[in-house]
Amino acid sequence: MQSIIFIMGVSGSGKTTVGKLLHEQTGFPFFDADDFHPAANIEKMKAGVPLTDDDRAGWLRTLNALAKVHVAAGAIIACSALKLKYREQLAQGLQQVQWIYLKGTYEMIYERMQQRKVHYFSAAMLQSQFDILEEPEEAWHYDVKDEPGQIVSYILKQTFMKSAFGVIGLGVMGKSLAMNLAGKGVTLSLYNRFVKDKEEQVAEKIIAANPELHDSKGFENINAFVQSLIAPRKILLMVNAGAATDAVIEQLMPLLGENDIVIDGGNSFYKDTEQRINLLKAKGIQFIGAGISGGEEGALKGPSIMPGGDKNAYQQVQTVLESIAAMDKNGKACCAYIGPGGSGHFVKMVHNAIEYAEMQLLSEVYDLMRNGLQLSPDAIAEKFTEWNASNLNSYLLEITIAILHEKENGDFLIDKILDTGSSKGTGSWAVATAAELGVPAGMMTAALNARYLSINKNLRVTLQQSLNHEKSSVAFSIDELKAAYTLARIINHHQGFELIKAAALKYEWAFNYNELARIWTNGCIIRSQLMEQLSSILSTDTLLLHPAIVKDMLLYKSALQSTVAQALQQGFSIPVMSEALNYLHATATANSAMNIIQAQRDYFGAHTYQRIDDASGKAYHKEWNKQ
Amino acid sequence: MQSIIFIMGVSGSGKTTVGKLLHEQTGFPFFDADDFHPAANIEKMKAGVPLTDDDRAGWLRTLNALAKVHVAAGAIIACSALKLKYREQLAQGLQQVQWIYLKGTYEMIYERMQQRKVHYFSAAMLQSQFDILEEPEEAWHYDVKDEPGQIVSYILKQTFMKSAFGVIGLGVMGKSLAMNLAGKGVTLSLYNRFVKDKEEQVAEKIIAANPELHDSKGFENINAFVQSLIAPRKILLMVNAGAATDAVIEQLMPLLGENDIVIDGGNSFYKDTEQRINLLKAKGIQFIGAGISGGEEGALKGPSIMPGGDKNAYQQVQTVLESIAAMDKNGKACCAYIGPGGSGHFVKMVHNAIEYAEMQLLSEVYDLMRNGLQLSPDAIAEKFTEWNASNLNSYLLEITIAILHEKENGDFLIDKILDTGSSKGTGSWAVATAAELGVPAGMMTAALNARYLSINKNLRVTLQQSLNHEKSSVAFSIDELKAAYTLARIINHHQGFELIKAAALKYEWAFNYNELARIWTNGCIIRSQLMEQLSSILSTDTLLLHPAIVKDMLLYKSALQSTVAQALQQGFSIPVMSEALNYLHATATANSAMNIIQAQRDYFGAHTYQRIDDASGKAYHKEWNKQ
Repeated sequence: MQSIIFIMGVSGSGKTTVGKLLHEQTGFPFFDADDFHPAANIEKMKAGVPLTDDDRAGWLRTLNALAKVHVAAGAIIACSALKLKYREQLAQGLQQVQWIYLKGTYEMIYERMQQRKVHYFSAAMLQSQFDILEEPEEAWHYDVKDEPGQIVSYILKQTFMKSAFGVIGLGVMGKSLAMNLAGKGVTLSLYNRFVKDKEEQVAEKIIAANPELHDSKGFENINAFVQSLIAPRKILLMVNAGAATDAVIEQLMPLLGENDIVIDGGNSFYKDTEQRINLLKAKGIQFIGAGISGGEEGALKGPSIMPGGDKNAYQQVQTVLESIAAMDKNGKACCAYIGPGGSGHFVKMVHNAIEYAEMQLLSEVYDLMRNGLQLSPDAIAEKFTEWNASNLNSYLLEITIAILHEKENGDFLIDKILDTGSSKGTGSWAVATAAELGVPAGMMTAALNARYLSINKNLRVTLQQSLNHEKSSVAFSIDELKAAYTLARIINHHQGFELIKAAALKYEWAFNYNELARIWTNGCIIRSQLMEQLSSILSTDTLLLHPAIVKDMLLYKSALQSTVAQALQQGFSIPVMSEALNYLHATATANSAMNIIQAQRDYFGAHTYQRIDDASGKAYHKEWNKQ
Repeated sequence: MQSIIFIMGVSGSGKTTVGKLLHEQTGFPFFDADDFHPAANIEKMKAGVPLTDDDRAGWLRTLNALAKVHVAAGAIIACSALKLKYREQLAQGLQQVQWIYLKGTYEMIYERMQQRKVHYFSAAMLQSQFDILEEPEEAWHYDVKDEPGQIVSYILKQTFMKSAFGVIGLGVMGKSLAMNLAGKGVTLSLYNRFVKDKEEQVAEKIIAANPELHDSKGFENINAFVQSLIAPRKILLMVNAGAATDAVIEQLMPLLGENDIVIDGGNSFYKDTEQRINLLKAKGIQFIGAGISGGEEGALKGPSIMPGGDKNAYQQVQTVLESIAAMDKNGKACCAYIGPGGSGHFVKMVHNAIEYAEMQLLSEVYDLMRNGLQLSPDAIAEKFTEWNASNLNSYLLEITIAILHEKENGDFLIDKILDTGSSKGTGSWAVATAAELGVPAGMMTAALNARYLSINKNLRVTLQQSLNHEKSSVAFSIDELKAAYTLARIINHHQGFELIKAAALKYEWAFNYNELARIWTNGCIIRSQLMEQLSSILSTDTLLLHPAIVKDMLLYKSALQSTVAQALQQGFSIPVMSEALNYLHATATANSAMNIIQAQRDYFGAHTYQRIDDASGKAYHKEWNKQ
């Protein structure tokens, strides 16, 4: 507990009653500040004359000395402490203080005063107390409407049983992770910001609505939230990436101390995470950037977790994080230390980028089946169900089947959904990062661009008319499409891991690629049979030269060629599948036409080129015959 | 001139001789500090006793007063001024001072002293002078080995004829722009850094080697360079983007003053330019970020210039910049004020990104002609020459023709050039920026990725073997290919301008798009007949709905379809042309399969979707039937 508990509030708010009950239930000594007034003050109050600040000064000093005597062993002190100034004097020089505020309206207290029998305070002075009252921010607030016993039970819960883990931000992901944590027996403090009329008592309401959380404590006061945690504190941030995360960190910094651990479980940009690690390190606070994938359901039942940052800090939360993570097929947690700095958020960013392309591939396959092979959503779902029973099994395929089956008044729901794609930060960051690191990750880029392009629905409607654009029947079979899809997925995963490898090189992160794939075999959105396969064949070498993958390429390449060629000929937009094929062709072209570009660059900018007959890498410049 | 010129150096370095010569040639009065010593000092010196700082104090005050008397009309003062402290006392309270340092070694001066006849200074005291000498940084240095007349001529050139314009950085572009400027009668000071054994006397050497620059002054001392410019100074930076640019700016800042103008003509990232504008604004220095395109030849004969930043500052350099720019077909300069902040560098970045895709398109067309239609480089050049006489005319096509004609010992040079593509900042920045701004600019991305992908030549060679990959003959005609190329170029330019429009929206830049295209009709790398056409039909509306463009799309779309489909079927990697087609298809698809992605996002992440039957844009979330 905090060693000194001050119970404050106007006269008649029940400080003494609550204090005595607390004393009974905890054994800590109880003092009523009223008992320490000098005789002169008591005379004044009896006479109905309000006390001045001068009258109170000596009294407050006495109480402060009393608190100091008891700080080591603990004590409960009831004192009106209506002004901030009084509270500062009372707590002066004390480190471990918890303020408890018994809050009520004038009307409610007045009524209680009327019922009071023996007290030297006159009810008529109540108004003067409300006049000077400065409500405390730093205190825990309790409503005097509640029974004193109830209030004491709240206080006991909040004060004497600290939580093992804190969660900040109770949106879809934060709430689900909290319930997951609680289910694993982790005692929790939950904090959500207060936004008038929009986010009020969010934590309390979630706790009330979910029996799994009955041992959790809810807060709207971040200081009280922090104080409610066992030191070194462990706090999971689940707020929006960017400014919101910065704002919470700024609030937390003065409240946290050495060895406390903050885990950012949001989709933060890895460079921001690096900066935050350094910012908090200056205060001795540990910061872990943990990618968490699985959506609402994964968060609740077991996500894939990718923590990066200081390894020692991770080891202090490892047991808890592993306990809430999904399990792989061998029963091992889909949670593993990724590496230092922002590496956890980096790999989560790439996870999401792979996801972008996987989703787009499914939408392209669906489009080709629906409009190229004239299958109904039900028939497509049936095909997908067959595929899902094969090595094409994946979570995204599974949910697409469920989506396609969904009906509304006999119509397919999918046909009611507007075709304008939304996106958040990770896809765009991944594309920008690939460009920066020199990685040709065209499939994620094409997937992102497809979403961007879809937004201008009006243009699409107009241009379809202007160009009489149509999608026509395609001549390939479903099996060819399946083969094309299979190969495109392999190339997509290859591109994603190449991006991770480039970062590993640049930032000197020593990743275990099989282990990375392993924690993506369950819990996360891109879990799949292919990921299972990758978890045993990845290495720092390129995946494209692995015999199993070469075999797949030989098997499926011609299907990918004919599928893409047919689809484009027939009016389909299949940017991600096209990119897979272009990438495959380029990677299998020993001698490309890139020499044209090198010649052009040397021609107009004297940028030089290398020669095929000089392996030294020497830079040549030609004085071109310019007109 | 600086109103007071102090000539400093040890005794015997020739201060008096140089000072008197300067006096003769300029008419400014000359004073020898030795003549102002009090009698006590002269006695000491005659006795061979070194002067103390106390001995010098009154003398220095006298000289400072002398300088103040003459500051308005100008004067030349010779004084040893060996310590920084003395120089500070001499110049105390004076704004317009130029230090000239006559520099020599002990041995050289000693020899001169021996030859001296009448002087009260003893040669034996020379060592004590070298002992206390603190060489001045702020001075212009001249070597005493040179004849006094020669030194005076240098000083006159440097002091009395200031230059109108300064250029920093004399690489390919800086040197060419300097020669362009000099040819337009602009007096120049040229500065290049000194790097031992690598970059020594770069400016002087370039001036010596190029008669056009005979009126220019060369510097390795940045202070002297700055002092040689007419105020308010105008300085063009032509150094590498990034750290090198920052380093020069850091050196310049303390030397520049209010209203001086720095023009960054390099390929800087526009966000860096924004920061630099703010950094320099704090000191009252104006900063213009000017994109300059045209390569070596353009820089020399007339580039396209895209200046962004403060408009008033631009107006002060407008005449000079316009004078060196290329001219459009109506004789108007290909230089126009782009907008505030980093807008000039932004549009240059997009210019380069369009260029990336144009170059890649040409390499794809070449590849298809060479390996799909079995044409020789000469035959391709012949076709390209026909195309270049049509509305496909462009600078890049023109240089590609020249490249294809180039032979070496009877072989085509193009076949000797290694096919690994290089790239610098702008392409990667443009791709990252498009991702950030939500613009589907897939062609520039595919072009960048093609370069990245080409780098791993070993992988390509190995994989070609493993997969027995081949490019086979294609069935389309050259005319179909021409049509496909024509349409792909239109879409590439459209994507580029869409990126600029997105930036205009975000940064509130009010661009004139026709004017932007106009300054790209000559001088720059992407000048072309198409750009001429665009310069009269662009607007803030989308180009794709302009009747002329719709007509082109109707004309060429089916050729683009069949060309791309055939090429991909036959084993070619044509990522940029494919992207053009996918983009065209997507933009002309009223109802796309993006609804699948929206459903998936809502399924796993509760991200919500909109409905086709609710135009309000309301967000729907479904409780999906999850297994």
